[in-house]
Amino acid sequence: MADRFAELSTRLEELGCEALLVLARSAQDPDLVPFVGSVHIGECQLVAPRSGAARLAFLTPMERDEAAATGLALITPEDLDHTRWQSEALEPADLTAWVAARALELSGLTPGRVALAGHGPAGVIQAACARLSKDGWVWVPGNSIVLALRKRKTEAEVEAIRSAAAGACEAFCAVARLLAAATVIDGALWLEGEPLRVARLRAEAGRALSSRGLEQPKGNIVAPGDEAGVPHSAGTDERVLRPGESLVVDLYPRGPLFFADCTRTFCVGDPPEPLARAWAAVRAALERAYEWSVPGVRGWSVQESVCALLTEHGELTPISSPGTTVGYVHNLGHGVGLDLHEQPTFKKVSGAEGVLREGDVFTLEPGLYHPEQGFGVRLEDLVRLGDDGTLENLTPLPYELDPRAYL
Amino acid sequence: MADRFAELSTRLEELGCEALLVLARSAQDPDLVPFVGSVHIGECQLVAPRSGAARLAFLTPMERDEAAATGLALITPEDLDHTRWQSEALEPADLTAWVAARALELSGLTPGRVALAGHGPAGVIQAACARLSKDGWVWVPGNSIVLALRKRKTEAEVEAIRSAAAGACEAFCAVARLLAAATVIDGALWLEGEPLRVARLRAEAGRALSSRGLEQPKGNIVAPGDEAGVPHSAGTDERVLRPGESLVVDLYPRGPLFFADCTRTFCVGDPPEPLARAWAAVRAALERAYEWSVPGVRGWSVQESVCALLTEHGELTPISSPGTTVGYVHNLGHGVGLDLHEQPTFKKVSGAEGVLREGDVFTLEPGLYHPEQGFGVRLEDLVRLGDDGTLENLTPLPYELDPRAYL
Repeated sequence: MADRFAELSTRLEELGCEALLVLARSAQDPDLVPFVGSVHIGECQLVAPRSGAARLAFLTPMERDEAAATGLALITPEDLDHTRWQSEALEPADLTAWVAARALELSGLTPGRVALAGHGPAGVIQAACARLSKDGWVWVPGNSIVLALRKRKTEAEVEAIRSAAAGACEAFCAVARLLAAATVIDGALWLEGEPLRVARLRAEAGRALSSRGLEQPKGNIVAPGDEAGVPHSAGTDERVLRPGESLVVDLYPRGPLFFADCTRTFCVGDPPEPLARAWAAVRAALERAYEWSVPGVRGWSVQESVCALLTEHGELTPISSPGTTVGYVHNLGHGVGLDLHEQPTFKKVSGAEGVLREGDVFTLEPGLYHPEQGFGVRLEDLVRLGDDGTLENLTPLPYELDPRAYL
Repeated sequence: MADRFAELSTRLEELGCEALLVLARSAQDPDLVPFVGSVHIGECQLVAPRSGAARLAFLTPMERDEAAATGLALITPEDLDHTRWQSEALEPADLTAWVAARALELSGLTPGRVALAGHGPAGVIQAACARLSKDGWVWVPGNSIVLALRKRKTEAEVEAIRSAAAGACEAFCAVARLLAAATVIDGALWLEGEPLRVARLRAEAGRALSSRGLEQPKGNIVAPGDEAGVPHSAGTDERVLRPGESLVVDLYPRGPLFFADCTRTFCVGDPPEPLARAWAAVRAALERAYEWSVPGVRGWSVQESVCALLTEHGELTPISSPGTTVGYVHNLGHGVGLDLHEQPTFKKVSGAEGVLREGDVFTLEPGLYHPEQGFGVRLEDLVRLGDDGTLENLTPLPYELDPRAYL
């Protein structure tokens, strides 16, 4: 954390800010975790002055032990006159403004430029900041500062992500086992005496993930056939699976704090020719994306190269056909950490957030979608760019459509 | 939902607002769910004018099917010129401001007073709102409006909460079975050839909850002895359990969208006299709280009555001793729904959010804490105030300290 506070200080200086203020509804706020670690605290605020010690303000005496575990200087409920404002039943925006004003003051700051990060209720944040503006505080958007600090993962963070990724891999194998065990009756997959539905696979994935202590706060995707043709369709639970159709399974579980993210596409029985061809193109794109993703390269450059490759395969892409919903319709990947989508980005941006660097953890996930033909294919690995410049695949699974490849 | 839009219209009129704007990072935002139901969408915004149809703005074409499933009028990525702003790589605050301005305009609104709800990154929200203020938009805090709409639960919402509560009950029984099966060796609990630790109980609760499709996005509390003496201590995984000590287990799992919340306190073997006495006082307080929680009463009144009762038992309370960390140190309960803590509140407030009404779902959770004596007791039921004015206990479990009562 010392490294991060040092880097934060540099960023605050660049922006001409005296401090970073993080407003958080809980210590799980992704803008707070890099500074406080893993503790069990509700609404709280962090003030990190450009120079000097960071202070954590917490609101209820019950949380004193958890707050102490952060190792930070604390602003206690007593410092905040909490019994007074509890009895006065402040409006949420008034409370947020009061705590922020007091925390900034107790950190030795006087009204000036402050970078603002953290997350919370939009109306409360807007009103609290407007109130403090009247006292002379000037707000500078600061979420992106913390996002930048979070880009390079520490060894402990990579370990947490690796563990979540290993759980995801187990879940894919569990799903593949069910698919491989299914039989075909009248054009539908059956298992254990009943039609095999999306819900059964979703439950199996959930079981495998939870047995590893992983949760799915953002759900998952188990999307067959036509639903697979729309990349963000979650899939309908009641839908019975069929042989010869594509099935996109995208799992993005979270450990206590860190996400993993992985996608595979299955097909039970022989894939139709268009599906087999799309799979081969996506597989080739992923293979090349591994080669192209080296330290210092822009994510957008890799995206451009993948688009060029898929154009050669006769597919539309967001570059050849902006806004297309057929062909390659999305971006190549995204950073993964405390948020499912963070830096680095593969979008067309000019800043450091768009450059792949040692220590980054991100996805590579080419896909092809043909809703008009009722199928979609996506293959997504979660990778870490190591200090030696090589990519480590955190989701080492087969890529084959045939679930028997996973056995 | 029609009822909620009608009530929203009334509230907007009271506040002199032309519309509600909900900024959301996903359709799971608790301020959005009451209007869009359960769909799988990322960053989006809702504009609900005081009169006229609500519109949902979504940002990527991939989400078109999920967006359509809301049944709302849509503002599509095409309406928002998404290919243009994607290629221009707008800053997050600029993008949020652009989408809001366009969504408000396409909803037929001109700059004026708008209630602001939803949740998101603090720096982005502050900057986006400041930008729009320059165009004449005036922001009114609106999270509390949606909170008020969410207070009375629909039948479908109660069903979702009931299902999560049933899963919590199963998890308590699973935990109790392990405790009841433990043996005492050298002053520690042992199970299956090893010391019984907090981590084992936590894993068992997680297993039981996940088998019901429940997650624990906010974790849980399994806090023995001295840790039980601090109500918000999560409990240390490595801690070995001991006979004769209190063990507070607080589970607050979530189904796809709705939370449940329940606490029980266990003691394996004979409880020491102070623990037994505290348990009896808490049990009596809960019993009386059931009687006092009738339609039209203020949560704060019930809290006052509980404080009076526990004062008679010789305990400190937040009323007799504001800020106390010994005795009864917290509030009696809180509403439960899309947020773990929502309306009604038992705090000292003057508004409708502090009045118990038919259709409310809330906790009743008296507790006594004696960290100086190394124990704590809390009993928490999740209840629904029915249309007939009676309380339904959604967590019908034993209250006894002895885990064998659960078998």
